[in-house]
Amino acid sequence: MSKSPEEEHPQQAFGWAARDPSGVLSPLKISRRVNGDNDITLKILFCGICHSDLHAIKNDWGNSVYPIVPGHEIVGVVTEVGRNVAKFKVGDKAGVGCMVGSCGSCDSCAQDLENYCPKIILTYNAVYHDGTTTYGGYSDKLVVEEHFVVRFPANLPLDGAAPLLCAGITVYSPIKYYGLCDPGKHLGVVGLGGLGHVAVKFAKALGAKVTVISTSPNKQKEAIEILGADSFLVSRNAEQMQAAMGTMDGILDTVSAAHPLLPLIGLLKNHGKLVMVGAPDKPLELPVFPLIMGRKLVGGSGIGGMKETQEMIDFAAKHNITADIEVISMDYVNTAMERLAKGDVKYRFVIDVANTLTT
Amino acid sequence: MSKSPEEEHPQQAFGWAARDPSGVLSPLKISRRVNGDNDITLKILFCGICHSDLHAIKNDWGNSVYPIVPGHEIVGVVTEVGRNVAKFKVGDKAGVGCMVGSCGSCDSCAQDLENYCPKIILTYNAVYHDGTTTYGGYSDKLVVEEHFVVRFPANLPLDGAAPLLCAGITVYSPIKYYGLCDPGKHLGVVGLGGLGHVAVKFAKALGAKVTVISTSPNKQKEAIEILGADSFLVSRNAEQMQAAMGTMDGILDTVSAAHPLLPLIGLLKNHGKLVMVGAPDKPLELPVFPLIMGRKLVGGSGIGGMKETQEMIDFAAKHNITADIEVISMDYVNTAMERLAKGDVKYRFVIDVANTLTT
Repeated sequence: MSKSPEEEHPQQAFGWAARDPSGVLSPLKISRRVNGDNDITLKILFCGICHSDLHAIKNDWGNSVYPIVPGHEIVGVVTEVGRNVAKFKVGDKAGVGCMVGSCGSCDSCAQDLENYCPKIILTYNAVYHDGTTTYGGYSDKLVVEEHFVVRFPANLPLDGAAPLLCAGITVYSPIKYYGLCDPGKHLGVVGLGGLGHVAVKFAKALGAKVTVISTSPNKQKEAIEILGADSFLVSRNAEQMQAAMGTMDGILDTVSAAHPLLPLIGLLKNHGKLVMVGAPDKPLELPVFPLIMGRKLVGGSGIGGMKETQEMIDFAAKHNITADIEVISMDYVNTAMERLAKGDVKYRFVIDVANTLTT
Repeated sequence: MSKSPEEEHPQQAFGWAARDPSGVLSPLKISRRVNGDNDITLKILFCGICHSDLHAIKNDWGNSVYPIVPGHEIVGVVTEVGRNVAKFKVGDKAGVGCMVGSCGSCDSCAQDLENYCPKIILTYNAVYHDGTTTYGGYSDKLVVEEHFVVRFPANLPLDGAAPLLCAGITVYSPIKYYGLCDPGKHLGVVGLGGLGHVAVKFAKALGAKVTVISTSPNKQKEAIEILGADSFLVSRNAEQMQAAMGTMDGILDTVSAAHPLLPLIGLLKNHGKLVMVGAPDKPLELPVFPLIMGRKLVGGSGIGGMKETQEMIDFAAKHNITADIEVISMDYVNTAMERLAKGDVKYRFVIDVANTLTT
């Protein structure tokens, strides 16, 4: 019989967990492994709340194993390093994103694309190499293999940068891979939420012209004046959409609700690329003729590898990019989840773990 | 009032035309313009029958203007050249594909991608610069701007090479653009018809490993033994498909009937590319999650530019690539269309225009 979360490992730890598909989070005693030769231990300072956390605690994807301690936008301070650890010393600021392990030997791992390793180990709700369960960042500490930890430049605010570890790399990686922000390019960003708002910031810093595409006209002012987008399209405004046909080199689609692709494909120039990073749970309708007539493509992308995640964090530090956040206390997390479900947050909740998680 | 096809131009010409959506073809007197300074006149020797011809004569796409003289896989001998013509002299063998004009000044034209010019003028059922109707290769002669004519190397059989002007470039261009046959790559080809069978030949000549994916198990022997494919998958055989999951770098999908994309996306490795060159008339179901999890893409491609069409023909000549054809006489064309509709041809009908079109 498997051990309880509290007894699996020798180090005592503490977090908030969902116990069933109600998704209600409450305190739970867990444990962490002894810091190994290649590991660092992180005292968690902040943890972002990703929309995936909400899906996971409610078992929306049907793969949740309870209890679940969510959280994969984790920043903290290093409190212990194994003897093989080269990149970190005690006191360093560091971050952990969506994964804490991979096979290390497949083509993907060899190409610094651990995110596409078939044996990727996610930061929570997954099974680690040793057969134990992974628990995420809604907790006081984490023991992680050095390879899966990102260095944080000193000038990067820890709370605002925490969401970059998931939301940031999720948009940065496809921007680079598909060449969406090469010099002179015009990028459309569909959806102005956790992902979309950081996409605008990265795209502007990379020199692209950026148009936000949204169902909500009332986001226009914010998109342009606060986030720095160049223009704004209301996707339900047929006249605006018609006028913008064939003007974009690429579109980053962050919307995970079902929505029509045809108008977005129409916004693309010839050879344009529509890249999906939000995952609707049902198939979307794909019109093939417009793809053929303009040699367009619809692609996907999921987070990014560790090397690219470090590159993204360094780029963010250089260009002062952080997420716009609302910092909350641990005991506000259930309310935050309700608000997140309604889209009532600008743009990311971040839990002040160090100051508000109490045993 | 517009002039009749016979009276539009000074040069008398003759072809077979569809007069209405029955699609029945019968003789029609037409006319061709005087050979201009930049034009060549082609005495047509052979013309391939493309599936598009069938769609056009039956008004399947709703844009047919009758009478229609189809045919855009045209080869012949040059009988006249304008004074600015540099590439051709009388007596040369030459070919004309899907287009006879474009704007010449847009980004696409500047990049040798006239096929994506918004003002592309198709070889038939289109309006030329001078306002007259274009008539295709089911006819005795053609006057064409030199830019839209392809040189035919001496060793290339004219009849078997005619279909390359549409089917050939339709598969060659995406193979190059999407890098589907880079060294060591494994390409899947869906559908073994006019497009698919030349795709196998080009892909093998380019050095790829090729797997044909078909609904018909009885095509296996031919695919491997005659066309040179390395392996064969029956798409309805769940066991075979399962065993091949994640093994292909790219897939060229030539099927224009509605069909599920999910199994094809499953056949791709991470970062794999599914490229559609057949155009189903209704949208297909696109599952987004598998695109994200493997950074895969679904793209389109339509024919190719003139520079690449010449490159393709030169490559075909060098590697002895032609289509497998059934040569027919002009008066067999209505029967050929019936057989084509049933898929009863290996793999392309080619009309022996010079010897069988009689006034």
